[in-house]
Amino acid sequence: MFQPDDLAPDRLVAEPIQRQLYQRVRDAIASGRLRPGERLPSARGLASQLGVARGTVDAALARLAGEGYVETRGPAGSFISPHLAAATLPPAARPIREAPPAPGAPSRSLPFQPGLPALDAFPRKLWSRVVAQSVRALAPPVLAYPDPAGWPPLRAAIAAYLGVSRGIACAPEQVFVTPGYQGALALIARARLAPGERVWVEDPGYALARQALRGSGAVLVPVPVDAEGLAVAEGVARAADARFALVTPTHQSPLGMALSLRRRLALLAWAAAAGAWIVEDDYDSEFRYAGPPLPALKSLDRGHRVLYAGSFSKVLFPALRLGYLVVPEPDIADFARAARSLQQGCPVLEQAAVARFMADGHFARHLRRMRGLYAARRAALAAAIAAEFGGAARIDPQEGGMHLLVRLPGTDDMGLAAHAAAAGLAPQPLSPLASLPGGEGGLTLGFANVDPRDALALAARLRDAVRDLLA
Amino acid sequence: MFQPDDLAPDRLVAEPIQRQLYQRVRDAIASGRLRPGERLPSARGLASQLGVARGTVDAALARLAGEGYVETRGPAGSFISPHLAAATLPPAARPIREAPPAPGAPSRSLPFQPGLPALDAFPRKLWSRVVAQSVRALAPPVLAYPDPAGWPPLRAAIAAYLGVSRGIACAPEQVFVTPGYQGALALIARARLAPGERVWVEDPGYALARQALRGSGAVLVPVPVDAEGLAVAEGVARAADARFALVTPTHQSPLGMALSLRRRLALLAWAAAAGAWIVEDDYDSEFRYAGPPLPALKSLDRGHRVLYAGSFSKVLFPALRLGYLVVPEPDIADFARAARSLQQGCPVLEQAAVARFMADGHFARHLRRMRGLYAARRAALAAAIAAEFGGAARIDPQEGGMHLLVRLPGTDDMGLAAHAAAAGLAPQPLSPLASLPGGEGGLTLGFANVDPRDALALAARLRDAVRDLLA
Repeated sequence: MFQPDDLAPDRLVAEPIQRQLYQRVRDAIASGRLRPGERLPSARGLASQLGVARGTVDAALARLAGEGYVETRGPAGSFISPHLAAATLPPAARPIREAPPAPGAPSRSLPFQPGLPALDAFPRKLWSRVVAQSVRALAPPVLAYPDPAGWPPLRAAIAAYLGVSRGIACAPEQVFVTPGYQGALALIARARLAPGERVWVEDPGYALARQALRGSGAVLVPVPVDAEGLAVAEGVARAADARFALVTPTHQSPLGMALSLRRRLALLAWAAAAGAWIVEDDYDSEFRYAGPPLPALKSLDRGHRVLYAGSFSKVLFPALRLGYLVVPEPDIADFARAARSLQQGCPVLEQAAVARFMADGHFARHLRRMRGLYAARRAALAAAIAAEFGGAARIDPQEGGMHLLVRLPGTDDMGLAAHAAAAGLAPQPLSPLASLPGGEGGLTLGFANVDPRDALALAARLRDAVRDLLA
Repeated sequence: MFQPDDLAPDRLVAEPIQRQLYQRVRDAIASGRLRPGERLPSARGLASQLGVARGTVDAALARLAGEGYVETRGPAGSFISPHLAAATLPPAARPIREAPPAPGAPSRSLPFQPGLPALDAFPRKLWSRVVAQSVRALAPPVLAYPDPAGWPPLRAAIAAYLGVSRGIACAPEQVFVTPGYQGALALIARARLAPGERVWVEDPGYALARQALRGSGAVLVPVPVDAEGLAVAEGVARAADARFALVTPTHQSPLGMALSLRRRLALLAWAAAAGAWIVEDDYDSEFRYAGPPLPALKSLDRGHRVLYAGSFSKVLFPALRLGYLVVPEPDIADFARAARSLQQGCPVLEQAAVARFMADGHFARHLRRMRGLYAARRAALAAAIAAEFGGAARIDPQEGGMHLLVRLPGTDDMGLAAHAAAAGLAPQPLSPLASLPGGEGGLTLGFANVDPRDALALAARLRDAVRDLLA
């Protein structure tokens, strides 16, 4: 029979209490003391019975839930996942080895973690229904190897969506479905990049994209960003012969400005003259809270130089692992060959479900709902930061996206982030995203998962965590 | 209103009739003349009404079904997929551009295509139920970025399965879930391969693996295969300092022999001495029709030199895009870092569904059923080939796998395969799989999708297609 004391941590060992709790729950499942479907005591009850902080219990439960061992059912409490057969669980005799996460690697969802959509607001029931319909419709032939270029109805749905929402006129054959944005970069590298070739990257810029390109053998050329976005003339001065420019024209990642029209034209002119390509990462253009969304750079692409990348990670959810790449018409055959050579075709079920979700109108409705929700969450968090930090913090004006950029003048943003991480918060510091000197530091705070009712408490927790570092 | 005549092909243009039919059905859907859910005339009826061969109609319908435009419901006939919204279909004004498939690239399922499991015998209803349960159980935290190393319950289920079925003792932390075998190779290359390093590959051997390794910058060293499998001494003579050996020890791909025990020991001794790794591709060991399955090479790996790769493509179905890699314990941290750097995490839903399918015992039952089914299909096709080809063909003895290796002495296997392809059949020639001279040609014939009732007719169709080339 399970007793809460089974979970009591050993305070004489160096292992953090939270990890001990996590490991003890797994042990109890593996040994059969906790059975699939069994209800766990409440987090509050466990914390008081074991004499540990409530936040520590919450963190251990969150990890167990994140890994599928525990299901949280809102007010009904937490349960051992009913589909875990005890026999399939690993014996927990020795600790799980884990390397420290690579810089910029996404981790489990923690407060303020940038880049995640509102996971609590995703319409899970509706999605479950769409998936159930989609899986029933999969006939034997489509159980075979999927087309590495993508599931045709999804390619068609994406082309239609981009035409309406982003001003991009493209045929379904120009759309390649990829395993997320990383998959799009892998496809681009296979089709168009030789090791040692140079690529402009925005500075500061998105760390995972840099890492992926470096992994593919590219030599990165950091190009500074100013109020108009990428400084195209600087790029030309540093590497006129680069093979690519990697840009976020709608909403620069992470600073948030749009690439100005004259810069857009300069960039297109450079690419046409150099025979180079522009990779447009349109990662969160769907979320804009003032004025109409800016058209994509791709919509200006008369010269067939822009490779346009989008992702479902932020508009649906990241665990889907689905993104797409729109290539110019003359490049279709080369990219089809590259897709076959990479053999990175995505699972058909996810593709069929997303195609159905779009075709049935759920996608457009979901985006509308999220725009309203995010505007409210953004405003609440901005107000909470202003209330808790007062004059110590300044929030950069941004018209879109899913994070706030908070400046805390006179502070070291890496130190701030480390202190916040110790308190279980995941704002990201700006300075590791830049390799050129002279930029101002700051913290990016994802707001999509911050419930307005929790905003003040989370802002206070952040302030308490970094209090010693504030000027 | 739709009329079968709408589909009538234009015999004055060069475009093949089959592609015209395919395009006309798409046009009819796009224009609304064929509506989602609408029943198509029978293939027999269409063929006679349009005056084209029944096989041509079948091929066009198969492509439409494969791409999701049409659903075939057995005796009830074929229907326009009910979930296609006409608005999402691409206008069909210009033909779809398609590059010719790369050599060895998997394509849609055609008779005799090797490497595909019995798609008709997959328990789709059961799978649909398991997926529906799994999608409902996905709580918000797991909608975030998945662990690039894999979904923990699936890693645990795979470790348990390998212990029982393949004699491999491994902890769940040693198991990395990958997007198919190609994903495992990408992970290995990221963790352990520098461009320009040499890799032994079996000759003849699996074309897609070679292509993937070459794409990662490896220099391939072909090593011949004889009755005992890979000629290890030849490998040592050609490249003692290679970084890897890529082998199929249980059932050599494509020739089918097992790697003998003394060769296994020699290979392990070389790897230990050279500090090299052995990649064991255990792609179809589950299917063996005489004697107990051979233990994996990995089960002999005392020196931590074997990277063991398995896939769900052949034991479940390829459109899942799920495989796994088991790494030696000392290598866990490096591979975890590589997995994070590749960011190739698989969709959580598929992983959760497979974990549940395994935990609930469905997986073991499905394998048992398939073993019986494949033994029967294999015997039927072997008998049909013998009956139709007589002394012109010889079938290599093989104790396992999913294809027959048919030798047609005195013929050119590339020519045979080209003639067969023209008849809509997809046996694969042996000679493109070898780069060393001296090997005997032949055809590999996948039997998993050949219903015993069709075996004679298909064998006759193959004989008719290649009749002119037979000695």
